[in-house]
Amino acid sequence: MEKLNDPIILYPIGFIKNGIKQPPKKPDWQMDTVSQLIIEPKWVEGLEGLEAFSHIIVLFWLDKIPENKVLLKVHPMHRLDLPETGLFATRTPNRPNRIGETVVKLLERQGNILKVIGLDALDDTPVLDIKPYLTSGDLIPSATEPSWTKETHG
Amino acid sequence: MEKLNDPIILYPIGFIKNGIKQPPKKPDWQMDTVSQLIIEPKWVEGLEGLEAFSHIIVLFWLDKIPENKVLLKVHPMHRLDLPETGLFATRTPNRPNRIGETVVKLLERQGNILKVIGLDALDDTPVLDIKPYLTSGDLIPSATEPSWTKETHG
Repeated sequence: MEKLNDPIILYPIGFIKNGIKQPPKKPDWQMDTVSQLIIEPKWVEGLEGLEAFSHIIVLFWLDKIPENKVLLKVHPMHRLDLPETGLFATRTPNRPNRIGETVVKLLERQGNILKVIGLDALDDTPVLDIKPYLTSGDLIPSATEPSWTKETHG
Repeated sequence: MEKLNDPIILYPIGFIKNGIKQPPKKPDWQMDTVSQLIIEPKWVEGLEGLEAFSHIIVLFWLDKIPENKVLLKVHPMHRLDLPETGLFATRTPNRPNRIGETVVKLLERQGNILKVIGLDALDDTPVLDIKPYLTSGDLIPSATEPSWTKETHG
């Protein structure tokens, strides 16, 4: 295939601050975790109008997760009772391109600082992009999924 | 802020094939567009189990969109009748890190080839990541948005 070896270069647009230095052992710890996204001041005008959305999509770079060899198949959420599944059928952070993608509730924006709840990222994680959550394309009421997801993300 | 100048390096995991060389003028052209995601064969085992999901999230690198200067404020979908809005409050492809993120319906998987419908990407676009669409985190029935989104994505 063409161009598989062409590198793609990104730069952080800001950083996540939430004081969480280690992934908590508690499942769903992110549900009540408040984070601040400190966006580089040069982009502040690009954030205008974001506060009109209740939810936003945060793309972040998973640089705080230990870089293990990428395993092609994993037990979802390290649950050995669940069947091994291809990594792309899970949200494991240990992936070829370590981009995290999470929908969070936007609590407030103050200039270049976004306060959100629900982000499963560690302190100082680089932010790659922020997008509005659109009900027309991101909300899929008809979506179906395998039964194991009820065990891990229910 | 720390490390804003540290580059982050990604490599494509595959490419999108749909024969679409120019963005069609028709709105919502992606709705009935079928694309193939040709994933590098070395990742094929990582795709196992993805077919149990009705929908997947595709992250792709918007390298086919002309690289204009990034404008901080834009008219959504080039609609001059809609108010200028910060770029991060829109899905404009012309962003600091040109990552596209679209939820698509997975029609079938044949080994390393995924057939999907609904992808708004041009032919030969690099794929960065594929994730399962999870109803517990990605489907937000309570999400609200500004009224202009009904004009552009209604």
